Amino acid sequence: MQMTHYAEAKLQEEKVFKDPVHRYVHVRDQAIWDLVGTREFQRLRRIRQLGTTFLVFHGAEHSRFNHSLGVYEIIRRIVDDIFVGRPEWDESERLLVLCAALLHDLGHGPFSHAFENVFELDHEYYTRQILLGDTEVNAVLRKVAPDFPEKVSQVIEKTYPNKLVVSLISSQIDADRMDYLQRDAYFTGVSYGHFDMERILRVMRPRENQVVIKSTGMHAVEDYIMSRYQMYLQVYFHPVSRSAEVVLNNILKRAKQLSMEGYKFKHEPTHFKAFFKNDITLEDYLSLDESILFTYFQFWMKEDDEILSDLSRRFVNRKLFQYIDLDPCAELDKYQKLQALFRQAGLNPEYYLVHDTTADLPYDFYRPGEENVRVPIFLEMKNGELRELSTESIIVDSISGKMKRDHKIYFPMDFLEDTSTHHDVKKKICMILQGN
Amino acid sequence: MQMTHYAEAKLQEEKVFKDPVHRYVHVRDQAIWDLVGTREFQRLRRIRQLGTTFLVFHGAEHSRFNHSLGVYEIIRRIVDDIFVGRPEWDESERLLVLCAALLHDLGHGPFSHAFENVFELDHEYYTRQILLGDTEVNAVLRKVAPDFPEKVSQVIEKTYPNKLVVSLISSQIDADRMDYLQRDAYFTGVSYGHFDMERILRVMRPRENQVVIKSTGMHAVEDYIMSRYQMYLQVYFHPVSRSAEVVLNNILKRAKQLSMEGYKFKHEPTHFKAFFKNDITLEDYLSLDESILFTYFQFWMKEDDEILSDLSRRFVNRKLFQYIDLDPCAELDKYQKLQALFRQAGLNPEYYLVHDTTADLPYDFYRPGEENVRVPIFLEMKNGELRELSTESIIVDSISGKMKRDHKIYFPMDFLEDTSTHHDVKKKICMILQGN
Amino acid sequence: MQMTHYAEAKLQEEKVFKDPVHRYVHVRDQAIWDLVGTREFQRLRRIRQLGTTFLVFHGAEHSRFNHSLGVYEIIRRIVDDIFVGRPEWDESERLLVLCAALLHDLGHGPFSHAFENVFELDHEYYTRQILLGDTEVNAVLRKVAPDFPEKVSQVIEKTYPNKLVVSLISSQIDADRMDYLQRDAYFTGVSYGHFDMERILRVMRPRENQVVIKSTGMHAVEDYIMSRYQMYLQVYFHPVSRSAEVVLNNILKRAKQLSMEGYKFKHEPTHFKAFFKNDITLEDYLSLDESILFTYFQFWMKEDDEILSDLSRRFVNRKLFQYIDLDPCAELDKYQKLQALFRQAGLNPEYYLVHDTTADLPYDFYRPGEENVRVPIFLEMKNGELRELSTESIIVDSISGKMKRDHKIYFPMDFLEDTSTHHDVKKKICMILQGN
Amino acid sequence: MQMTHYAEAKLQEEKVFKDPVHRYVHVRDQAIWDLVGTREFQRLRRIRQLGTTFLVFHGAEHSRFNHSLGVYEIIRRIVDDIFVGRPEWDESERLLVLCAALLHDLGHGPFSHAFENVFELDHEYYTRQILLGDTEVNAVLRKVAPDFPEKVSQVIEKTYPNKLVVSLISSQIDADRMDYLQRDAYFTGVSYGHFDMERILRVMRPRENQVVIKSTGMHAVEDYIMSRYQMYLQVYFHPVSRSAEVVLNNILKRAKQLSMEGYKFKHEPTHFKAFFKNDITLEDYLSLDESILFTYFQFWMKEDDEILSDLSRRFVNRKLFQYIDLDPCAELDKYQKLQALFRQAGLNPEYYLVHDTTADLPYDFYRPGEENVRVPIFLEMKNGELRELSTESIIVDSISGKMKRDHKIYFPMDFLEDTSTHHDVKKKICMILQGN
Repeated sequence: MQMTHYAEAKLQEEKVFKDPVHRYVHVRDQAIWDLVGTREFQRLRRIRQLGTTFLVFHGAEHSRFNHSLGVYEIIRRIVDDIFVGRPEWDESERLLVLCAALLHDLGHGPFSHAFENVFELDHEYYTRQILLGDTEVNAVLRKVAPDFPEKVSQVIEKTYPNKLVVSLISSQIDADRMDYLQRDAYFTGVSYGHFDMERILRVMRPRENQVVIKSTGMHAVEDYIMSRYQMYLQVYFHPVSRSAEVVLNNILKRAKQLSMEGYKFKHEPTHFKAFFKNDITLEDYLSLDESILFTYFQFWMKEDDEILSDLSRRFVNRKLFQYIDLDPCAELDKYQKLQALFRQAGLNPEYYLVHDTTADLPYDFYRPGEENVRVPIFLEMKNGELRELSTESIIVDSISGKMKRDHKIYFPMDFLEDTSTHHDVKKKICMILQGN
Repeated sequence: MQMTHYAEAKLQEEKVFKDPVHRYVHVRDQAIWDLVGTREFQRLRRIRQLGTTFLVFHGAEHSRFNHSLGVYEIIRRIVDDIFVGRPEWDESERLLVLCAALLHDLGHGPFSHAFENVFELDHEYYTRQILLGDTEVNAVLRKVAPDFPEKVSQVIEKTYPNKLVVSLISSQIDADRMDYLQRDAYFTGVSYGHFDMERILRVMRPRENQVVIKSTGMHAVEDYIMSRYQMYLQVYFHPVSRSAEVVLNNILKRAKQLSMEGYKFKHEPTHFKAFFKNDITLEDYLSLDESILFTYFQFWMKEDDEILSDLSRRFVNRKLFQYIDLDPCAELDKYQKLQALFRQAGLNPEYYLVHDTTADLPYDFYRPGEENVRVPIFLEMKNGELRELSTESIIVDSISGKMKRDHKIYFPMDFLEDTSTHHDVKKKICMILQGN
Repeated sequence: MQMTHYAEAKLQEEKVFKDPVHRYVHVRDQAIWDLVGTREFQRLRRIRQLGTTFLVFHGAEHSRFNHSLGVYEIIRRIVDDIFVGRPEWDESERLLVLCAALLHDLGHGPFSHAFENVFELDHEYYTRQILLGDTEVNAVLRKVAPDFPEKVSQVIEKTYPNKLVVSLISSQIDADRMDYLQRDAYFTGVSYGHFDMERILRVMRPRENQVVIKSTGMHAVEDYIMSRYQMYLQVYFHPVSRSAEVVLNNILKRAKQLSMEGYKFKHEPTHFKAFFKNDITLEDYLSLDESILFTYFQFWMKEDDEILSDLSRRFVNRKLFQYIDLDPCAELDKYQKLQALFRQAGLNPEYYLVHDTTADLPYDFYRPGEENVRVPIFLEMKNGELRELSTESIIVDSISGKMKRDHKIYFPMDFLEDTSTHHDVKKKICMILQGN
Repeated sequence: MQMTHYAEAKLQEEKVFKDPVHRYVHVRDQAIWDLVGTREFQRLRRIRQLGTTFLVFHGAEHSRFNHSLGVYEIIRRIVDDIFVGRPEWDESERLLVLCAALLHDLGHGPFSHAFENVFELDHEYYTRQILLGDTEVNAVLRKVAPDFPEKVSQVIEKTYPNKLVVSLISSQIDADRMDYLQRDAYFTGVSYGHFDMERILRVMRPRENQVVIKSTGMHAVEDYIMSRYQMYLQVYFHPVSRSAEVVLNNILKRAKQLSMEGYKFKHEPTHFKAFFKNDITLEDYLSLDESILFTYFQFWMKEDDEILSDLSRRFVNRKLFQYIDLDPCAELDKYQKLQALFRQAGLNPEYYLVHDTTADLPYDFYRPGEENVRVPIFLEMKNGELRELSTESIIVDSISGKMKRDHKIYFPMDFLEDTSTHHDVKKKICMILQGN
């Protein structure tokens, strides 16, 4: 890499961000400081880390800006406190991995999961676009070296040749996960999500192609895996949060559908036009954030289309759907029966009867074997041998790949309880929902 | 009060909110549960507790929804765990004080301080409007008793006859402050703001006209006062947060000015029209939140008016003003000189040279004597005598009313650093700013 | 039970103990307050909760006094906050279970495990003796009712007819364990041992014969089980702590052996005489504590018997034994070979070559089936059905009864390293220890 | 200093101690590791950091061993993370200041304050004796350099020429205080004692003759000063802890008095002989610890002398003295009257009526002016000027030197309540004590 002086430029005085999770985030590199100041990075302040979860855990209002700084800080500690001076660590990769850490979530849109789902987008694609396009971030990165934006992109996309660098950002025990587990636990206030990160950092070692964990740290890693397991069950897959996700998804789906049908919106959905037509520029993408979406939802509350206005009101005022569990084997036809009955009751099942499984959600338990992208965790035994974690840990082995899929049906209970219309159909629906 | 059954209705099963500060917020009363579900209360989710502070402390993204539940929970513990059964406490006031606690901030608008300042509004007026107007909140309160909305409003306005009830919500040591100090400390991550609330609650006693503190708890109260002092200096008066406030204030001021001048906005500022004309309905007021404001700032970034677009970009992308300290006695004419020079340099000083003092901000140190609204803190000695806190505590006495006013001048350094135009004037400005 | 007024006597004002784990321990019952003041209960201040562990985790200096108050406080919260008013809970058992909680460890001696092992004692026997004998504790309990001491003893011994009461103190998820896991984590400073006790308490329900857990709380219970697992592996079975235990055990064993052989101690071991002769009165037992033992170890450092003085010096000055892992299958004869070589090297293997397995330690993982004493954890499903935890939880099932036994050999490495004598034998020993 | 290789010897692998306050204490220097292993340092495990305070705050059972490691760790962070590489810091002082930090409390005896008071000893004298005498500690230090023990002693005694080094260990904001405030808060469980040490460390700068604080860190220092103030009032001067101190003091005083009078002890007080005769060798001093003292108190409970046995029982079984406040101006003769009446009631006032003022206790508030030993805190302003803290901080100024002396009289209430003897005199005493 052809380095300019900028790559080594340090701030005259170290800057710190006060961070509730890591206490302080320390910045000494000019490039990092400049990246934080770009408009693309500042935009992450207006995108929540946990999407709709704040409707269940009211503390979870923290942004991706928060998390991105946190991932950067963890990597900074690894490379500056643990790896520095070790022969297996190439110091010239330092700024690269710091930048990749800071920028790894840059392409996330507002309420990513629902948004990407409805408009068939991929935030990783947009991360790359922002890194390589005509952006403030790109301008900073190019000052380091002409090929630096491309390299940062490769690290984030896991195609960078030095897999050790990649594994710091993306593996079963990367800085990304270590930050979000702790951060999400802190802001939701749940008592899970805690593990001894300091201990884990101290036993991390750079090896060819990946980070490994000294075997003496196995129990700290077990604890981390258990935290992840609990956070998924308790927070990330929380059924009410999924309900909010379902409603949000259907708002976007409805608006798109209406647009395709030539519906005349009272308030022109300027920001969405490109998305409805699937002809999206980087500028279109960057102009969105969760403020904008919330503003539109409030416009749409007043639209004539009853489905769009009802769903928007539900999301804004938190009148979510109820749910029941569904046994996908035994109750094969239940869902279909309900669809027919919903139609009879005047409720469009496409928007008001939603079958949701946790497997539709980003699911990244520790599953060696199943997963071919994330590098599994390797323990380095005293004799230097590497062993995959689940072969050593009873606990980890026990939960690897055993997660059962959870199926639920979401629907608006209030509609069913209003028996002024469709009394008999609704009664029938309720009986089915109650399992009779 | 003519009670209906609704006033005593309990949920079949207690509901809890997971709260990072109080661990759990417990709700057993049907009325409280229903109030939380109203659209006016849910709107508080879209208004940050600390306004622009999140631009300095990135964790401070918590909403007024959060805080309102927290104040409710503290009051619930006081009345249900400490006051219950004591002869001085009238159990029939219980639901009233709980509702007042929950709803005390209901009238806050987006970025309250700047917004109220520019449009000459008062959130307390709107709290009353929401309580008494045609709202979902009012509908719930009326189910308790016809005069219940009025009573809740009186407690919040401090005109309710039973001053003991008022003092729980508004005094120098009320539930409002105990919640926000802890909550703001938690979300900013600063190490100040902690005090032993559990101890304070345990020594609170209901007396005629006010809450008092058993003298054995004096040191816990001192610690609380010190926390407040530190939080003000470190967080609430943080100079960079004030810079963001200055920029925000000037955006709104500019938009209003442009509207008054008949400026044609590219994007019609529908939501602001009533505010520009100062003819505001409750619906106008409630339709605003911080999402909407952020959306407008992004529209305004593209307006032709250079001041409006520049200030909007500054706020959205966090390019704030710099500041210097001003000695208001010795440097009387400095500010005036600078105003003239700014004009010469082509910068409108009304928007780009702002004199800000902390006394312009909501300032509520513990100052017995100065303040005639907030009830001071009284200690109850062993013999039953009441003594005002600062007569007993050296520490509290020392900081009472001694806070010196802090004066700063805010300005855009980047403009001054760009010496491609007005080179000489800008040089002169810089010399003055540097104290030469 | 024939109650006197004393059973219901309340303190004029609630007393509190400041507790780092539960924040405050609250006492309102006169009987509880009086029990805390007895000399038998105060004696627990001089007995460490974790025996020799403070030699590894220097914070672990907390006493059984601490823990006993903690168990009491947890039970107090269960019965006063959760159980009160429920039809399945008999309020007349309240004081009984509180007393049993407070007093359940009363019979523990100094460094219980080693002490009981060498002198073939049982602390449960002594708990009963203290409760029923001529003690200050007994005097307080008798004031409640003549048969009250016996009842308290039955609850602790698990023979009390109402098994619900027993299960609060002794089950797989009793107050005893919930306190010690948190307390030991706090004082050692490890990051394991945390779980959401408040949540668990909230889902506990009194049922016939036992406490059950509402199934909605399963994940909190899983987290508790995992904490236990980690605390055992990381703290309770810590190999260096076991080394200290081995040395301590051998000091006592040696002193007893010397006494039996008629050895003339320089300093008459008055306190131990009854134990050496196995003719122990309650007063003999109560006169011991860890201060006394440490005093004797310092006397014994100066005894002529080299084994006794060497081991005492090791313990007092923390020069412990080293260890290696032993594979009990493959290395059947290794241990025997080493015994022979130790003798050749002039080291008595009975005191200097110790085979220790974790199964010799109090081992109480969650093992339904294996264990017939501790009541397993039952979840109460929504339909009222009870299911044993490991049938519902993948995690718990995975670690139930699977703990592999850990075998180690402990020995004094410094002796072996001193090759001024027995050079060749020691070299041979070292080669075996190093696995060659 | 003539350095040997030993001064630079590093452990092959860093060792860590798990510490609840600093999470980990890191040791890399061979010399530090060896010092921790000496018998003189291990002895600190058997001496509580807070003496009798554990009788009030039951968690406060932590030892001076704990604290000494903590002070070492703070200094290690200062020199290795903050000072390293700065021109004002002489790296060759590193090991010296680390050793001084670790060993600064080495000469403390059991229950230091009472013990030193009765036997007119000074722990600083013994620290020096241990450092320079024939001890394991001295042997380790001499391996560094022949004059190294003397240098360590000078740093601890504040006579070392480089006052910067001295000020790290002894000043108004030294590592000693920063550790004990946090540690004592942690183990007592009080909510005071917390301050942002990480922030303070980051703004510490080495200057000629002393450590200074960058002025931007003033508020963190204010918070530290306030923590100290609160810890003194709430914990260190706790009236019940002082009661225990009074009883302990009088036990030792009585035993000494009896010895001087030729009293024949049932159990020969071997360990105390040298102290009674005031002819103490280093070995006599080192052979004492709190185990030994507790053992003697239990012997003395059975002595014939009623005062000694009564006081010993009081201390061991925690039956302490009660207290009343005394106004030393207005109530000049009250104390004298009580003395006479106590004598009439058959109670020796020398042991049973104790006038105690907090000024008798080690009192080290921040009092510039009053105190000529501890270096005050200097802030370094942006222009490099140094200003003493209380000239800048309103808060600190307000509490500097203003602490009012607290006078109390301690006495055994139970004796007075037993009116079977001396009925009238006791009644008179009680009336005086109740202020009539």
